[in-house]
Amino acid sequence: MTTIRDVAKQAEVSVATVSRVINKRGYVHEETLKKVEQAIKELNYKPNDVARSLFKKTSNSIGFIIPDITNPFFPQLVRAVESTMIESGYTVILFNSDEVLDHELKLIELMESKYMDGLLVVSNTITKDHLENLTMPVVAIDRVLDKGIPTVYVDNYKGARQAVQFLIKKGCQKIAYLHGPEKIFTAKERLRGYQDEMEKNGLPTFIYPGNYELKASMMSTIRLLAEHPDVDGIFAGNDVMAVGAIKAASKMGYTIPKELKIIGFDGIDLATAITPELTTMHQPILEIGKKGSELLLQLIAGQSPEKKHYVYDAELVERNST
Amino acid sequence: MTTIRDVAKQAEVSVATVSRVINKRGYVHEETLKKVEQAIKELNYKPNDVARSLFKKTSNSIGFIIPDITNPFFPQLVRAVESTMIESGYTVILFNSDEVLDHELKLIELMESKYMDGLLVVSNTITKDHLENLTMPVVAIDRVLDKGIPTVYVDNYKGARQAVQFLIKKGCQKIAYLHGPEKIFTAKERLRGYQDEMEKNGLPTFIYPGNYELKASMMSTIRLLAEHPDVDGIFAGNDVMAVGAIKAASKMGYTIPKELKIIGFDGIDLATAITPELTTMHQPILEIGKKGSELLLQLIAGQSPEKKHYVYDAELVERNST
Repeated sequence: MTTIRDVAKQAEVSVATVSRVINKRGYVHEETLKKVEQAIKELNYKPNDVARSLFKKTSNSIGFIIPDITNPFFPQLVRAVESTMIESGYTVILFNSDEVLDHELKLIELMESKYMDGLLVVSNTITKDHLENLTMPVVAIDRVLDKGIPTVYVDNYKGARQAVQFLIKKGCQKIAYLHGPEKIFTAKERLRGYQDEMEKNGLPTFIYPGNYELKASMMSTIRLLAEHPDVDGIFAGNDVMAVGAIKAASKMGYTIPKELKIIGFDGIDLATAITPELTTMHQPILEIGKKGSELLLQLIAGQSPEKKHYVYDAELVERNST
Repeated sequence: MTTIRDVAKQAEVSVATVSRVINKRGYVHEETLKKVEQAIKELNYKPNDVARSLFKKTSNSIGFIIPDITNPFFPQLVRAVESTMIESGYTVILFNSDEVLDHELKLIELMESKYMDGLLVVSNTITKDHLENLTMPVVAIDRVLDKGIPTVYVDNYKGARQAVQFLIKKGCQKIAYLHGPEKIFTAKERLRGYQDEMEKNGLPTFIYPGNYELKASMMSTIRLLAEHPDVDGIFAGNDVMAVGAIKAASKMGYTIPKELKIIGFDGIDLATAITPELTTMHQPILEIGKKGSELLLQLIAGQSPEKKHYVYDAELVERNST
């Protein structure tokens, strides 16, 4: 492969001069310019992106760290981010972190050293301290890392209260909650919403772990309905768990929604793929992805966004499971 | 940020000397070595990956081009690839191409110029010609690009014939096929398998487009059952379409599997999330991802794999939809 050194040798100038020509920066004598251009042509030299990003310190790409691509919420978010970024000429480079902090930090270091222009991150483990020495702008999506970090997310607490209110309005008196992973911001907020709304209505709480997963949710639902067969409503902390609850309850002979009403949270495509279709607190996933991308583009351009945190409301979408 | 130039200046040596120290290549006088190491320490200089990959022409990362992350087959494949690659110390960088050739070629150029170590690709539009000038090794997954390119995939034709045989064995006589996108390798092979097996059994064919999508499949199933209400079996070219067929047929009052048997292809998680659970031709997605990764690692290490193409069999997994 032809290098910048080969070009310099051929043109009988320094590497720095060739670099000035390639990057159209600084003064280059006209005659020298011609010699360098001639050499570039003769050697068919193509300045590569690595070299260019070393000079320009930009790569026209942004990194996007997500925790788990097999959770159906994230592919939809990724597509929303990509469509906004591609329109603006940026390539989106995806990383799946599994929310292992060491892995995330290694990824961030990798991105910074590759001169990416910015970083979108969905994480529960990264904190302000991990990000404060970065030279690239960072926007958090879906989960709050710190007050000072621009963030786009949905009001999980409010949405959870609405879900419970809706089940009560539908006549439910014994409402259980399927809880997500304990450490995850969204799961904690939704649990808090369930607890506060139940307390406000003077109703007892029944909390079972579902880990945001189908199988864990099915197992917990079976245990829940064995221990409390008269439960008449289930609020699942995400749609995947709600699908598991529907499956398990159906197998145990419950008629949904007549005997048992089930509501989820997220609004993923899976919610309409199953029968009965799932009532859920729908997150505006497209808008969240778009807003997060726009915010990052603003920061990359050196602009200050109007505010740090953009909070959307989840919207009740009533279908056949309630 | 401290650069290699700052280090060279501080140590009073050339940039090339600093580079030799950093990359532990070539002769450096012991006294000079000490001076450079001292300067690196004093300035807290960290040679960055971009610079290093320029010298070493490697980045310990591989690119993985997939067509559509919202198709649930791909997140599972991505996880399989990642777990193998991470074990070997490689970072996987994901790109969603939408199977737009221009986009794919731009991505490949980007990867090559960033000195990625290799490329995994799922594509119907990339051909041998697009890849022959690449210096990094390429492995195709799921779809055959060319005989000469190492590829890992499932025998779609054989799997499709087995799916039809199974429905016939179950008593179906009027079997329709929901077809994927016409240009996609896997869809063409599965269609061919359906046609050949139906012809072998002297049965008429009913082919409806489903585009590998839930909604398109639902609409086609409604049209199919309106036009041919006595259809007693549906072979859907992928699981997503099979889920759509189950949904549409249930809505139209068909009892599954009693009046209508439905089989899918892929073996994605969604197949067990729905009720009735889907009978399907299960692809060994984990093995395919693992084998593709191992093959690429072999090529990166300069080894020749035993053979170019690794073809797996899809396996019939009988559940409640047949």
